[in-house]
Amino acid sequence: MRIAIDMDEVLADPIHKFIQLYNRDHQVPLDLLIHPGTEIFQNVPAEVSDKWKEYINEKGFFRDLPVIEGAVDAVQKLQQHYEVYIVSAAMEFKNSLEDKMDWLSQHFPFISWKQIVFCGEKIVDVDIMIDDRIKNFKDFKGRPLLFTSPHNLLITDYERVDNWQQVLKKLL
Amino acid sequence: MRIAIDMDEVLADPIHKFIQLYNRDHQVPLDLLIHPGTEIFQNVPAEVSDKWKEYINEKGFFRDLPVIEGAVDAVQKLQQHYEVYIVSAAMEFKNSLEDKMDWLSQHFPFISWKQIVFCGEKIVDVDIMIDDRIKNFKDFKGRPLLFTSPHNLLITDYERVDNWQQVLKKLL
Repeated sequence: MRIAIDMDEVLADPIHKFIQLYNRDHQVPLDLLIHPGTEIFQNVPAEVSDKWKEYINEKGFFRDLPVIEGAVDAVQKLQQHYEVYIVSAAMEFKNSLEDKMDWLSQHFPFISWKQIVFCGEKIVDVDIMIDDRIKNFKDFKGRPLLFTSPHNLLITDYERVDNWQQVLKKLL
Repeated sequence: MRIAIDMDEVLADPIHKFIQLYNRDHQVPLDLLIHPGTEIFQNVPAEVSDKWKEYINEKGFFRDLPVIEGAVDAVQKLQQHYEVYIVSAAMEFKNSLEDKMDWLSQHFPFISWKQIVFCGEKIVDVDIMIDDRIKNFKDFKGRPLLFTSPHNLLITDYERVDNWQQVLKKLL
């Protein structure tokens, strides 16, 4: 059985980094609350809400993202029972490609290049997909697991996992 | 219907570039013949046969590859009838990622980032796969089209296409 695991907001935490950058440049508080069902840019002052596009397209943005709690241990455990693939919609941001490869080598050294997929649309032939964006479940015929993130909190029509402990409980 | 189209030796010509580099550094003739069923490194002097690894890992190697004859026109025509995806096993060479994106933007500007997949194993959910490497057809449930390249000339157990004209004849 094959599992596709998303990167941003599933393995890596870009929201934390966005808040730090908005804090540095626009005094947004470090404990900014992302309201359920909204994106980061809807929670910062309107006049700087577009800044996230600049941040995300900068070289280095994805290189030092924090690892989501429990992700390394969980992926390692899943790998003993499944064919694991890391599948990231990285193509939207050309400058992210090398950063994401380096980040994976650093934090998930047990993932080989053969298991990494950077794409636009997630047209992967897998059995289970763990992702925080339901647009990636469109046309997906396998079992989708919606990984909780502030922006998807109001969505009710998918099997949900709140953290990596819950993923392991469901899949092992 | 979805088609996955490989890059190297299908859209882009790395063999031509390898020969140029071997010629520049080791006087290999520019009209070097790649014997049927062999790779480039088996056709150069043994003492420099490993040099290809150095070349392919250099930044810029993939940026200025020639386009395979007829590829641009053919992909454009296929796109009118199929969902086209460019699927390249680029992950083996981290330095190729940005070069390949730039090369596609230059020569195939009508391909959006949503249609690009860089991967290790080609675990794509498509109906047709055009590729020169049969290892990518392993586990593939759709229709494989083996795109002729010197190294695969002795393989007989796949439907073969020798050039882009033949692809269009079969698929349009």
